[in-house]
Amino acid sequence: MLIVGELINTSRSVVSEYVDKNDADSIRELAKKQAGAGAHFIDVNCGTKGAKEADTMKWLIDNVKAVTDLPISVDSSNPKVMEVGLVEVGGDNVILNSISLETDRYAGMLPLALKYKTRVIGLAMDDRGIPKTADEKFTVGKQLIDSLIKEGIPVENIYLDLLVQPLSVSDVSGLELLNALKMFKEQMPEVKIISALSNISFGLPNRKLLNRIFLVQTLTMGMDAYILDPADKEVMGFMYATEALIGHDRYCGKYLTAHRKGFFSK
Amino acid sequence: MLIVGELINTSRSVVSEYVDKNDADSIRELAKKQAGAGAHFIDVNCGTKGAKEADTMKWLIDNVKAVTDLPISVDSSNPKVMEVGLVEVGGDNVILNSISLETDRYAGMLPLALKYKTRVIGLAMDDRGIPKTADEKFTVGKQLIDSLIKEGIPVENIYLDLLVQPLSVSDVSGLELLNALKMFKEQMPEVKIISALSNISFGLPNRKLLNRIFLVQTLTMGMDAYILDPADKEVMGFMYATEALIGHDRYCGKYLTAHRKGFFSK
Repeated sequence: MLIVGELINTSRSVVSEYVDKNDADSIRELAKKQAGAGAHFIDVNCGTKGAKEADTMKWLIDNVKAVTDLPISVDSSNPKVMEVGLVEVGGDNVILNSISLETDRYAGMLPLALKYKTRVIGLAMDDRGIPKTADEKFTVGKQLIDSLIKEGIPVENIYLDLLVQPLSVSDVSGLELLNALKMFKEQMPEVKIISALSNISFGLPNRKLLNRIFLVQTLTMGMDAYILDPADKEVMGFMYATEALIGHDRYCGKYLTAHRKGFFSK
Repeated sequence: MLIVGELINTSRSVVSEYVDKNDADSIRELAKKQAGAGAHFIDVNCGTKGAKEADTMKWLIDNVKAVTDLPISVDSSNPKVMEVGLVEVGGDNVILNSISLETDRYAGMLPLALKYKTRVIGLAMDDRGIPKTADEKFTVGKQLIDSLIKEGIPVENIYLDLLVQPLSVSDVSGLELLNALKMFKEQMPEVKIISALSNISFGLPNRKLLNRIFLVQTLTMGMDAYILDPADKEVMGFMYATEALIGHDRYCGKYLTAHRKGFFSK
C-alpha cells in the first residue's frame, strides 16, 4: 500500500493562505505531519496560483525538502511548472502527477517523465474527457499504459488513476470504478492502480463515511495506492482494519498497534 | 438483500430474563422493533434453555406471531425443538435454521425441511468441523447444496452460511471467507449466501467497526443475506451506503432516506 499525502494543495484555503503569507513554517509542519503519519510521498499542488504557480511550486518543494527525505509528487497540469518542480526536487525519486491521453498533456508531460526518469501518475482519460463505464475506463487506461510502456517507462513506475466520479452525478459511478479496477486486477495485474476517493461523495451527505466505505471497497478489490490525508486517523483506522480483514496483516499486528495509538474513535 | 433479525436469542442475557420472567410484552417489543426496522425474517433461538427449549420456542413464536406477520426463522440444533417450532409457526413461509452436513443434524433436519416445505439455512460444515480454507468451504458448501437440491429442496429456498471464524484465531479467516464467497458467486451464482458477521471480530478491539467493515466487504463481494440487528442504525447506515456505492440504489434514494432518518451518526 502506497500513500501519497494530499495536504499540501493550494485548493485548500488554509494552504493558500500559508503561501500568500510566505508562512514556510506551516508548510513544513504539514510535510512533517504527513511524513510522521506514514505517507510514502508528499504531493505538492499549487495550481490555483495561476501566474505564480511555478514560483510557488519551487518554494513549496524547498520547504518540504527542508524537513523530510520523503519523495515528492509534483502535481501540476502545466508542463513548464512540472519541469520547474522536477528540477527543484532533483533526482529520479519523484512522481510526475500527472500525465493522461489528452493530446496536449501527453505531449507536454511525456518528455519530462523520460528526461527525469520519474514515476508517473497516469489519468485514464483522453480528449473526449473522463470515461464513464468500466469498459471505457479499462480501454482508455490500457491504451495509456501500453503507450507509456512503449515509450520506455517501466510498468512498475506507473500508477494508473481510474478517476472516481461523483455518485450524485451517476448512481453507478462507484460500481463502474470497482468493475474497472477488477478488470485491471484480472487482466493486467502488473499495473498499479491509484485513487483519490473523495470525489465519490461530492454532493451527498455523510461524505466522510462514504469516502471511508469506498476506501474499504476499493482496497478489498485490490487498489494499490491512495492519494489521501494520512494524518486522518479514522481513515487510516479503516485502512488498517480492512487490510487485517483481507489477510494483509500478520497476526493483526498493525491493526492492534493502530488501536493502541488511538486510531479508532470507538 | 434479505435481513434476518437476530435479537430474539436467549444467549442474550436480556432475552433470557424476559423468558424467565414470562415477560411477553418485551419479546413482542423486540419483534416489532425488528419488523419496523426492516427485517424480513425474525429469528427465534432459545438453545440456552436446555430441557425447556421446546416450550420456550413455542411461547416465543406465539408472541412474535401476535405482533407481526413477518416469517420466522426457527433457530435450533435440536430436531425435536425444530419440529415444535415449525408446527407452531404453521405454513411454509418459514426458515429452518439450520441444517449442515453433520451426520446427525442432516438426518434430523432434512425430513423436517421436506415435510414442512421450509426455506433452510445450510451451514457449510460436516463431521470434521468448520472448514478453514476457501477451497474447503466451497467443497463442503457445494456438497451440502447439491445434496439438498437432490433431496428436493429448490435452490432458491436455500441460504448457505459459510461460517465466519474469528480473525484473532487465524489472521486469514476473513480472506478465506471472502474467497469462498467469490468462488460461489463465480461458479454457482444461483446459490444465496448468508452470514452472521460478528464472529469475525471475536477477541479483537473495536469489534463494531470490524464487523461493519466486514459487512462492507462481504456485501460488495455479493453476499445475499445477513443475520444481524436491523435496529442498529449505524450498521444499517453502512449497508445503505455500501449498496449505493455498488450501484444498487437508484438515485441514491435509500441512502438519502436513511440519512434523513438519522441512520448516520456523523
